[in-house]
Amino acid sequence: MLQLSQRGVALPASPYRKLTPYADAARQRGLVVHPLNIGQPDIETPPAMLAAVQQASIGVLEYSPTAGYLSYRHKLADYYQRLGLPVVADDVLVTTGGSEAISFALLGCLDPGDEFIVPEPFYGPYTAFAVATGTHVVAVTARLEDNFALPPIEDFERRITPRTKAILICSPNNPTGYVYSRAEMEQLKDLCLRHNLYLLSDEAYREFCYDAEYTSALHLQDADDHIVLLDTISKRYSACGARIGAIVTKNRALRDVFFKLAQLRVSPPGLGQLLAEAAADLPDTYFDHTKAEYLARRDLMLRRLREMPGVRVPTPSGAFYVIAHLPVDDADHFAQWLLESFSHHGQTLMISPASGFYATPGLGRQQVRLAYVVNQEVIGQAMDCLAAALEQYPGRTLA
Amino acid sequence: MLQLSQRGVALPASPYRKLTPYADAARQRGLVVHPLNIGQPDIETPPAMLAAVQQASIGVLEYSPTAGYLSYRHKLADYYQRLGLPVVADDVLVTTGGSEAISFALLGCLDPGDEFIVPEPFYGPYTAFAVATGTHVVAVTARLEDNFALPPIEDFERRITPRTKAILICSPNNPTGYVYSRAEMEQLKDLCLRHNLYLLSDEAYREFCYDAEYTSALHLQDADDHIVLLDTISKRYSACGARIGAIVTKNRALRDVFFKLAQLRVSPPGLGQLLAEAAADLPDTYFDHTKAEYLARRDLMLRRLREMPGVRVPTPSGAFYVIAHLPVDDADHFAQWLLESFSHHGQTLMISPASGFYATPGLGRQQVRLAYVVNQEVIGQAMDCLAAALEQYPGRTLA
Repeated sequence: MLQLSQRGVALPASPYRKLTPYADAARQRGLVVHPLNIGQPDIETPPAMLAAVQQASIGVLEYSPTAGYLSYRHKLADYYQRLGLPVVADDVLVTTGGSEAISFALLGCLDPGDEFIVPEPFYGPYTAFAVATGTHVVAVTARLEDNFALPPIEDFERRITPRTKAILICSPNNPTGYVYSRAEMEQLKDLCLRHNLYLLSDEAYREFCYDAEYTSALHLQDADDHIVLLDTISKRYSACGARIGAIVTKNRALRDVFFKLAQLRVSPPGLGQLLAEAAADLPDTYFDHTKAEYLARRDLMLRRLREMPGVRVPTPSGAFYVIAHLPVDDADHFAQWLLESFSHHGQTLMISPASGFYATPGLGRQQVRLAYVVNQEVIGQAMDCLAAALEQYPGRTLA
Repeated sequence: MLQLSQRGVALPASPYRKLTPYADAARQRGLVVHPLNIGQPDIETPPAMLAAVQQASIGVLEYSPTAGYLSYRHKLADYYQRLGLPVVADDVLVTTGGSEAISFALLGCLDPGDEFIVPEPFYGPYTAFAVATGTHVVAVTARLEDNFALPPIEDFERRITPRTKAILICSPNNPTGYVYSRAEMEQLKDLCLRHNLYLLSDEAYREFCYDAEYTSALHLQDADDHIVLLDTISKRYSACGARIGAIVTKNRALRDVFFKLAQLRVSPPGLGQLLAEAAADLPDTYFDHTKAEYLARRDLMLRRLREMPGVRVPTPSGAFYVIAHLPVDDADHFAQWLLESFSHHGQTLMISPASGFYATPGLGRQQVRLAYVVNQEVIGQAMDCLAAALEQYPGRTLA
């Protein structure tokens, strides 16, 4: 019999998309569904970046170089240098979105059967990346009660085996919004040096830190060979559709491996690179407005959530996500119920149950992730819905 | 000690790029280097396709749907239907170039340790795709003396093991230009049905058939579950930099696996899809001019090659490549010598030694691939160079 691959069968479907059919049905019934479930920002892509593509003179849309346009790699290096990171163009390989950077890191640093440790809750697709690359996610639990700070370093140490090859972190964190402190980053570095591990650092949300100072893995000293930065312009410039990311390392041998992997797909997208390169010409103040807007949204959402009985929510210092504990029996049921059986003035909302962000079964059952990627008026309406829903939901756990 | 992954170390570097440093050095010395080595067409990307991107009104460059824009998938289905292929939008998943389609096919149909059979010479990077996915290429040799026709089907049958999961073909073929006949395609289909194998069919050069009728794998009857079409717009519309391809199958379970793989990278490039979608509005005659130009180039190149003593070259019916047997001791040495030690009126040429297209060691040592992706004047100059070089090369095998 013709068979699918076992890895293909084992691949988990994206936790982000499970609710899509219910949301489609709700919209069919005429409801407005507020999308707080995914990290698709509503902020305008900078017109100057779009203009760079739209005004470019292109005769033949050729393959770009495998590592990306050299001019763009230089501009990326300049960008990192302005952040105090010792990056030169040679250290940068332009990838097809941040997702390709994750794939390259796992393929280049780990062999099938190898393990990488990630603090949970974590970006759901990491599990599927592991299945696709034959590797294993080992989770160390961060707790809502601790604001999702880095778990004690001993928790990591206890999970290290001969097959452990890397620690994967995301800071500012998706889904928790936590920003690792310099001290936490130093602890991770020491751990990686002690056990010969790579530190894979997903820094997609770098620009969005509100009341914490951001430390890049490349700010750390004397660990150059261990550090791999995974990056993307998707969130930074609200340009998710461009599919432009980067993988950055000072480890030359590893870079050669990433380059061989990159040769398989010949080149990253050309048009997206033209767009990305134009970011260099944005004014220094570009992020100020965006950050101020996200901060106002965060504060509004936190204030509204904290007014709801039984809701507990730490203050996330970065990114554009909040993880909230809700007084519900099961957030997966609740999220589906919101779409199937609830409405408030013709509206409802779509949220991400947090179970999809935990590897340990049973964790996060009462937690959800809310993305503040809609404007403040919509956040207000969505919070009205949520408050009403928590009163009506049959599985509520408050008297 | 910090280690690279074994698969990362094992990955072969692209055979296409080995000569690049020598070509760069030759250009530094002031030589004109005619690039016959890679499949980057010089044909203009249709201005109407570029205009579709450049005139689009884009506020937020969002993720596209994971499978690609539905409107584009419908247009692709229409395109396939015009070719007589029974494809509907649901069968189509838009990929990030043809290379992603190859990755998805190997990940979805094969597990680590599994094998796929490919007629050699074949597109060099297939070997690296196998390493990256933990699978193995098994080669069946096609011969220059037979015009690189499909090897006897018994040669395939003999190499089938319990780990064989697929046959991978490319038609029109890169690097040979051979176009598999209907009868050959039927033989492959029967083989796949008999042994429960997938038929992975790379059809990137579909539009460029000169004196052979093209048969798609999806023209074959009663084998729907077995057939996976790997496609790209790169060569079709001279739009390599767009990074837009497609993977097409009627096998629904397999499609679900491809979709889960696609979720990892969230979406294919958005700007490239806008460009690709505009291909639907090109006039029906669009390919006529391009085909006529490639045909004239092919015929010029064949005529000039056949005038050179000791050169043997079959007539390729499709794509834009010629494999030629040259009277040289070692085509790898010869290719490097052309760049390091030869010039003719200030010019030389860059060619692809065929050894990179064979899995069997020692094969193709006297063969090279020449791409006719430059205009006829340049082909003329390049052939002048080659003729002179074959007279001067110290390792020539003619008296």
